[in-house]
Amino acid sequence: MIKIIVDCFGGDHSPDANIDGAIDALQRFEDLSIILTGDEAILKAKLAERSYPADRIEIVHAPEVIGCEDKPTDAIRLKRNSSMMKGIMMLRDDDSVAGLVSTGSSGALVTGALIRIGRLAGVIRPAFCPVLPTMDGGIVGICDSGANVEVKPDMLRQFAIMGSIYMETVYGVKKPRVALLNVGVEAEKGDTLRQEAYKLLEETECINFVGNMESRDLLSGKYDLVVCDGFSGNVLVKSTEGTALELLKMLKKNIFSRTIYKIGALFMKKMFSDMKSFMDYQNYGGSVLIGTSKVVVKGHGSSKAKAIEKCIEQAYRMEAGAIGPRIETELVKYSHYEE
Amino acid sequence: MIKIIVDCFGGDHSPDANIDGAIDALQRFEDLSIILTGDEAILKAKLAERSYPADRIEIVHAPEVIGCEDKPTDAIRLKRNSSMMKGIMMLRDDDSVAGLVSTGSSGALVTGALIRIGRLAGVIRPAFCPVLPTMDGGIVGICDSGANVEVKPDMLRQFAIMGSIYMETVYGVKKPRVALLNVGVEAEKGDTLRQEAYKLLEETECINFVGNMESRDLLSGKYDLVVCDGFSGNVLVKSTEGTALELLKMLKKNIFSRTIYKIGALFMKKMFSDMKSFMDYQNYGGSVLIGTSKVVVKGHGSSKAKAIEKCIEQAYRMEAGAIGPRIETELVKYSHYEE
Repeated sequence: MIKIIVDCFGGDHSPDANIDGAIDALQRFEDLSIILTGDEAILKAKLAERSYPADRIEIVHAPEVIGCEDKPTDAIRLKRNSSMMKGIMMLRDDDSVAGLVSTGSSGALVTGALIRIGRLAGVIRPAFCPVLPTMDGGIVGICDSGANVEVKPDMLRQFAIMGSIYMETVYGVKKPRVALLNVGVEAEKGDTLRQEAYKLLEETECINFVGNMESRDLLSGKYDLVVCDGFSGNVLVKSTEGTALELLKMLKKNIFSRTIYKIGALFMKKMFSDMKSFMDYQNYGGSVLIGTSKVVVKGHGSSKAKAIEKCIEQAYRMEAGAIGPRIETELVKYSHYEE
Repeated sequence: MIKIIVDCFGGDHSPDANIDGAIDALQRFEDLSIILTGDEAILKAKLAERSYPADRIEIVHAPEVIGCEDKPTDAIRLKRNSSMMKGIMMLRDDDSVAGLVSTGSSGALVTGALIRIGRLAGVIRPAFCPVLPTMDGGIVGICDSGANVEVKPDMLRQFAIMGSIYMETVYGVKKPRVALLNVGVEAEKGDTLRQEAYKLLEETECINFVGNMESRDLLSGKYDLVVCDGFSGNVLVKSTEGTALELLKMLKKNIFSRTIYKIGALFMKKMFSDMKSFMDYQNYGGSVLIGTSKVVVKGHGSSKAKAIEKCIEQAYRMEAGAIGPRIETELVKYSHYEE
């Protein structure tokens, strides 16, 4: 049985979306059990309205909620009874619990995970690794997308190793093609960080490094994993998602601007809905935090049930694929580069 | 008369696009004159096929071409007879020449401009400032988009000042709303560079600083100028352009996948063509290099005549608006922050 905690508060559609996503995940995976954290009275009332496998779901009372306005370091210290911190502490203390899914504050989650849960052996810093859909129907992972705004070359190498194992374990990508995010494709491009990282990545045998990638090629399908510092990774992911969303909005607005366009759109209804669904992050789960000693998945704040279910699936597959031991086994080979 | 050099080689559609763009610009601006650099025989033959205002166009022979494979420092030293380097040297030596437009190698252009032309008084480092269309029909400038992969807080402040003057001079934007690219909107977000830059920008009276911006909001229309280091600026611009292009390609591919979609698309032909044109960078000119002592504009390598014409317009308006003296006047007020 794989046991995963779902933090039921802190998201835009909490707790309903979190509860529904948990129940959907339980229906898909028979060896999964879930602990819901949050206000017990509310969770009990919500569960009473639904049908669910009662033997594989339990509630842990945690009446407080960490908001975006809470400073992460204060939040983890002062809000010990929050749905997120209760989850983090259980993850730390209970060996039978494998992972945590949360749609709450990223900052509090990263800080809480780092300070309370700690890292796998050999990991310098855990990193976020969300995935985006590519134009050829595949996916691409981006590591790091924001956990570390300042990095060093050996950290980028670790992101490449951990991200490769993640793409293989959770998505079945064989020998993931790893690229380094840079301002040009030539080896000598970029700042000192990128030049040094390029050399390190080139000599790392356990990964399939294919060179530098310019951000415009992220969705091209030519890469399975892009390695970057958390600052530019954050810029990359959010601008890609933002541009896609703005264009869809523009398309919609334009269609509604003239009757003839509305008529045309009727013929293309399925196509537009397919495109919308293709670009909907809800279908791709959350940002997993790779490198912590237990599995942590951060869902979008605006996650609905489907996204939560995907986040739980990510955590489940990471645990089922024994990602922790696999990362530790690989990293030890390169431990002379550690801080 | 405002005299501008057009480097006629080094672009994907050179020299035809460059020549056509130059002629179109001459027709729009009566006090503009143009010097074409490149192989004289080729340029003469091309001009002979066209009608143009002969009294305002001249050719300067430069038989060599700098390619993307040329290392910038070698290119500027060894290819003195290239269309780009001839242009740069004329810009430096001839007081009557105001600016240079080139679609050749960015690296060679930046290096050549820095070493041969030099900076305006007070400028630490010149920066690229392309503009992109926003969803409300406006534009947004991004400074720096790649000239400086490593920056310091006082450089970011200078990008804000120079970029503001540029947006006002060339596009008539009053009191441009300036944002700092960051991983979140709160003042304390990001690395030390961002935190220090935030404070500097806040206390700079001559700009209209409105706070941090997340990359997903670039096209929202809420900002007129985004300030960033050249690495993340490059990631931002290329991922925005790349995502837009990939989505358009996907839309096209989907439409052609089924007859019913093709029928629907017939009703929406004008809408799709408007959207394509809206997102076509050819309509927004090139990346101007702000902070060099004379005007330098870098066009996309794939620029067609329309884009070249826009690049020339940008150079023309920068000179007509006396952007150099205006930048020097503002920067001197903050010179205690210079290196």
